[in-house]
Amino acid sequence: MLQALIDEFGADAVISGSEIAERATSYWDSSSTEAKALLRLTSTEQVSRAMQMCAAQNQTVVVQGGLTGVVGGAVATADDIIISLERMNQIESVDAMDGVAVIQAGAILQTVQEQLAEQGFLFPLDLGARGSCTIGGTVATNAGGINVLRYGMMRNLVLGLEVVMADGTVISSMNQMLKNNTGYDLKQLFIGSEGTLGIVTRVVVKLFPMPKSRQTAMFAAESFDAVVKTLKTMQSELAGTLSAYEVMWNNYYKSVTYEGAHKAPMDRDYPFYVIAEAEGADPEADQARFQSLLERSLENGDIVDAVLPKSTAERDALWIIREDFDPALPAYLYDVSLPIKSMSTYVDRLDAAIAAWRPDAACLVFGHIADGNLHIFTTPFDDGANQERCNEIIYGCLDGLNGSISAEHGIGLDKKDWLGSSRSEDEIELMRNLKRLLDPNNLLNPGKVMDPR
Amino acid sequence: MLQALIDEFGADAVISGSEIAERATSYWDSSSTEAKALLRLTSTEQVSRAMQMCAAQNQTVVVQGGLTGVVGGAVATADDIIISLERMNQIESVDAMDGVAVIQAGAILQTVQEQLAEQGFLFPLDLGARGSCTIGGTVATNAGGINVLRYGMMRNLVLGLEVVMADGTVISSMNQMLKNNTGYDLKQLFIGSEGTLGIVTRVVVKLFPMPKSRQTAMFAAESFDAVVKTLKTMQSELAGTLSAYEVMWNNYYKSVTYEGAHKAPMDRDYPFYVIAEAEGADPEADQARFQSLLERSLENGDIVDAVLPKSTAERDALWIIREDFDPALPAYLYDVSLPIKSMSTYVDRLDAAIAAWRPDAACLVFGHIADGNLHIFTTPFDDGANQERCNEIIYGCLDGLNGSISAEHGIGLDKKDWLGSSRSEDEIELMRNLKRLLDPNNLLNPGKVMDPR
Repeated sequence: MLQALIDEFGADAVISGSEIAERATSYWDSSSTEAKALLRLTSTEQVSRAMQMCAAQNQTVVVQGGLTGVVGGAVATADDIIISLERMNQIESVDAMDGVAVIQAGAILQTVQEQLAEQGFLFPLDLGARGSCTIGGTVATNAGGINVLRYGMMRNLVLGLEVVMADGTVISSMNQMLKNNTGYDLKQLFIGSEGTLGIVTRVVVKLFPMPKSRQTAMFAAESFDAVVKTLKTMQSELAGTLSAYEVMWNNYYKSVTYEGAHKAPMDRDYPFYVIAEAEGADPEADQARFQSLLERSLENGDIVDAVLPKSTAERDALWIIREDFDPALPAYLYDVSLPIKSMSTYVDRLDAAIAAWRPDAACLVFGHIADGNLHIFTTPFDDGANQERCNEIIYGCLDGLNGSISAEHGIGLDKKDWLGSSRSEDEIELMRNLKRLLDPNNLLNPGKVMDPR
Repeated sequence: MLQALIDEFGADAVISGSEIAERATSYWDSSSTEAKALLRLTSTEQVSRAMQMCAAQNQTVVVQGGLTGVVGGAVATADDIIISLERMNQIESVDAMDGVAVIQAGAILQTVQEQLAEQGFLFPLDLGARGSCTIGGTVATNAGGINVLRYGMMRNLVLGLEVVMADGTVISSMNQMLKNNTGYDLKQLFIGSEGTLGIVTRVVVKLFPMPKSRQTAMFAAESFDAVVKTLKTMQSELAGTLSAYEVMWNNYYKSVTYEGAHKAPMDRDYPFYVIAEAEGADPEADQARFQSLLERSLENGDIVDAVLPKSTAERDALWIIREDFDPALPAYLYDVSLPIKSMSTYVDRLDAAIAAWRPDAACLVFGHIADGNLHIFTTPFDDGANQERCNEIIYGCLDGLNGSISAEHGIGLDKKDWLGSSRSEDEIELMRNLKRLLDPNNLLNPGKVMDPR
């Protein structure tokens, strides 16, 4: 098989043995990657050919992007062949009149953002992993991040897709219009399926004109109710230009602003901190409106302190508190979703369960509340020994709150055993049926999301 | 079968014979509805039970909503049973904090809009058929309309769905968060599948705060390039608050503003007319910005005339020109999508093909250009005798332009023969496989979208 792959794609494209072992399993796991071979392919046609060859040998395949996922969704075993799209990393075209771009799946998100910005376009998907994650990976996981309340998840930004199926068939649905109701919208099947139904090779995305102004603030509030009230006020008063509303509970804020970690922009004892951002078209008027809104909120007590950055560097110093959480690690990283109205109840339950577990335990909470999304870090980590106990606490506390065990991270390997707590048996059976239909021999990313029956 | 249905659901719920014949086939076709029976069911459980009974008898089922679709997607035959959700027409709940509503599939769009407006929320899906079309129908057809450039299609507004499958299984995915990546997003399968894969009974939708200001204008332009340039300017300068940009070619405008039809708000000889609308949060500032933008466009010649309504009545008098096209009927109604950059080429081709067809032929063009969506009316209608010839012209002219034969109307019966001109054989085969998986006995809306093989 290895020789056949080298014959087909060239020695340069086929990595094996120690060369694979030099690669880390993921951003989060420095252990060696395992696989029979790793293919660095350069076109949809090559991926199609590779899948034909693998299908003929009943060879399992794991597709890898930036390896920043946190649920083990792209981890291979020694029995798998890895397909990497790292050499399919170009923006193929930008159509300025229609505001669309065609991008290869292996392109790095931040590179894409920057190259499109040079052409006057905003590609609004944005998340902490932007420097490593790939466009294909963000499609496969239906990535979310910090701008979802305004621009939606990756699903809402994808107009068209090219996908290689388990048998090598290429489904090319490279639509570039906002409206196209010609039969079933097949691309939706693949978005968020975590590489288990097909291999995304090229993507058509929707672009936005680059905003001419940006307003940022960090502020503090005394209660979760005040945090929600201020969100609602901003959503209403900023006429849909609010692009981020990141909430940090005191315990998270403290855990990343201690001496030697990030600099605290304001007192460390407020119950809640928020970073809010809006993007508009009129720098002066937008800033005035944003500022007067904050002043009113200060006056009526909804917020109790605020910092407005005066430069990009000052803005970055605020965002790093939210985005660089290394000072709070090691910890278990969770990502749940639930209605805003249930968040207080949930966090209260969590605090109680964590306290009941052991005296040195902690849970740090932050998240995109407008999206119904909380991230939670639990400690102590103890080399991973507490994973199962923490799962039980985090997922157990969701009981009856109409939440889900994954807002944006996906299921991968790590949450597979808990899928049944968020989806009904009928839903999971339909998922299995779809998997069997599209990948009858279970060749694509086997063992991820759910097991076939 | 009829008696069994009456026993199960009550005589009141089961309509047959002449009572069915009293109902028109659709908004567009006054001929009598045909069916073995029409069931007016009141709950998901009843729909599930009905499907179990139908499946046991291999009985085909057509679901009907507001019957405003224009592609015959909800037309039944004498062999079918119709399930109508007209008695499932309530908003079940509105969650103000999370900005979501749970709505039964048979609720009328306009009623939903109005009831939610009373509670301070905008439900932004909007289209001419708002007074008749149902929420379930807008899901089944992935409806678009006039606000898509800002708020997306119905797909983007649906957070959760409850669906009854062909065998009666209920897939309840009533998610209410913006983010929920727990396995495959099953609801996407059903949105836009035109009732062929399952019966949508309840929907969770995303709401928006009611805008505090609205700016409307109709203006005229000398060229399509100027129309596009003004769109781009408005998208950039109005910071994402632009909510509608409806373009009418001269031939359409003239066809609905003649003596005895609608009153023309401006000269009838401009090449292009646009209705633009923005929704903001600050009535005074927004109006000033909107108006100064129009003034600049007038000064630089991008637009050559403009009308700004001073009251709701005046606004309605502008919109009626776009929305009430009865004065232009009878005609064949088309709905294609294509990139903005190809629209001029396409309309030029159309004009040439129509002129070459016969001297009394005409094609009237208007549409949502920001969505890549043109509507076209062709005449003469001649009692429908020219349908095939017009299909060939309208769809044939798309050749090589990366367009599609349906932007928002769907495929239904009328466009089925042309599906292959917009989708590849591999795509259609995958659609057929999905249909076979979810509805192996072809019971749901048989013959629509595509034929099984």
